[in-house]
Amino acid sequence: MIELFTAATPNGHKVSITLEEMGLPYSLKVLDLGKKEQKQADFVNLNPNGRIPVIRDKDNDDFVVFESGAILVYLAEKTGMLMPTEPKGRSKVMQWLMFQMAGVGPMMGQANVFYRYMEEKIPAAIDRYQQESKRLLSVLDRRLQDNQYLAGDYSIADIANWCWARSYEWSGVDIDNLPYLQRWLMDIGERQAVKKGLQMPPRAEDETIVTGARKMLGS
Amino acid sequence: MIELFTAATPNGHKVSITLEEMGLPYSLKVLDLGKKEQKQADFVNLNPNGRIPVIRDKDNDDFVVFESGAILVYLAEKTGMLMPTEPKGRSKVMQWLMFQMAGVGPMMGQANVFYRYMEEKIPAAIDRYQQESKRLLSVLDRRLQDNQYLAGDYSIADIANWCWARSYEWSGVDIDNLPYLQRWLMDIGERQAVKKGLQMPPRAEDETIVTGARKMLGS
Repeated sequence: MIELFTAATPNGHKVSITLEEMGLPYSLKVLDLGKKEQKQADFVNLNPNGRIPVIRDKDNDDFVVFESGAILVYLAEKTGMLMPTEPKGRSKVMQWLMFQMAGVGPMMGQANVFYRYMEEKIPAAIDRYQQESKRLLSVLDRRLQDNQYLAGDYSIADIANWCWARSYEWSGVDIDNLPYLQRWLMDIGERQAVKKGLQMPPRAEDETIVTGARKMLGS
Repeated sequence: MIELFTAATPNGHKVSITLEEMGLPYSLKVLDLGKKEQKQADFVNLNPNGRIPVIRDKDNDDFVVFESGAILVYLAEKTGMLMPTEPKGRSKVMQWLMFQMAGVGPMMGQANVFYRYMEEKIPAAIDRYQQESKRLLSVLDRRLQDNQYLAGDYSIADIANWCWARSYEWSGVDIDNLPYLQRWLMDIGERQAVKKGLQMPPRAEDETIVTGARKMLGS
């Protein structure tokens, strides 16, 4: 059994979707980020960075893993699923996973901060992060022009990038001219495990990201 | 032989230091970032994201790897060095590597943009990124209080974080109250392979980051 400490965010969804795809049994520990539960001592003992998601593997001496990218790699290696074991294929997945961890995630995250959360609206900062997010999504689009998935078969690299790319509206970025990215967003969004993982933890109907996702997924 | 496409930046130094530590033969292809050589078609064919570093492994069918974090993992797996093969130890290295890729690198990078490069000085953005960089460096400091290195033995996780953490002055962050981080910065900075890797590619004497590094390394 895997214990998943999470919340309804792109990084949280990476792990719930991956667990659903793998069919691994897991239990949810939902943190209230509004109450800063991720900064409380009990949780910081698990992740010194005070961020979700975190897993604790009850079947491996309660081994704790933090950082969403490291969790996906751990689960892929534990199960032999969603990442090749052969070195070149494996490295390709690692490259596109790192591209998400170092690029798509941080830049869309900053776009959200300046476009959505910060009271003072700073045009230079909003523009910077929306443009960089759009550039990174365009890199994915070009990759997906000749490839169904980012790195060979469907993998943790797709899951990681998908969880952020799907929230383009929330970041204020349009993807009208990125048809291959759109195809991939729809394609992965139709997977049962993805639909189920997105409901972990369940969110209220009226919250924006779920609304955006439903719209995007056509439901 | 490994071909390394690089420039004198923290992400470039991660790879040159790792290659030096491993004693792997490599050749340098230095890109002029001022001339945006990393955005030219030949290079974008290697890395669709148009960023250094990139390696091409002449001994593995010219296999190309981009994203510094993915390069370090590839080299560690190729050589069996600087990352355990045992699953828990390996995951710990991956966790602290991801912490750098998703946190320390992007946040110190943004601090540099708003504090150093952008002509318009935006206090709210400068403060945000300097505070977040300081918070992340404090997480490293706490980790290093009871641990000589970040994840067991000296590893690619140390190299990745070190290359960014050492440039704290350039980001406008002070580490006066982070003694364990200071000890680790000094300790790793004294390694011969690290000193050599920092000179790849050679930089002019008068450039700021080299000056900062020399000062820090006491030479």
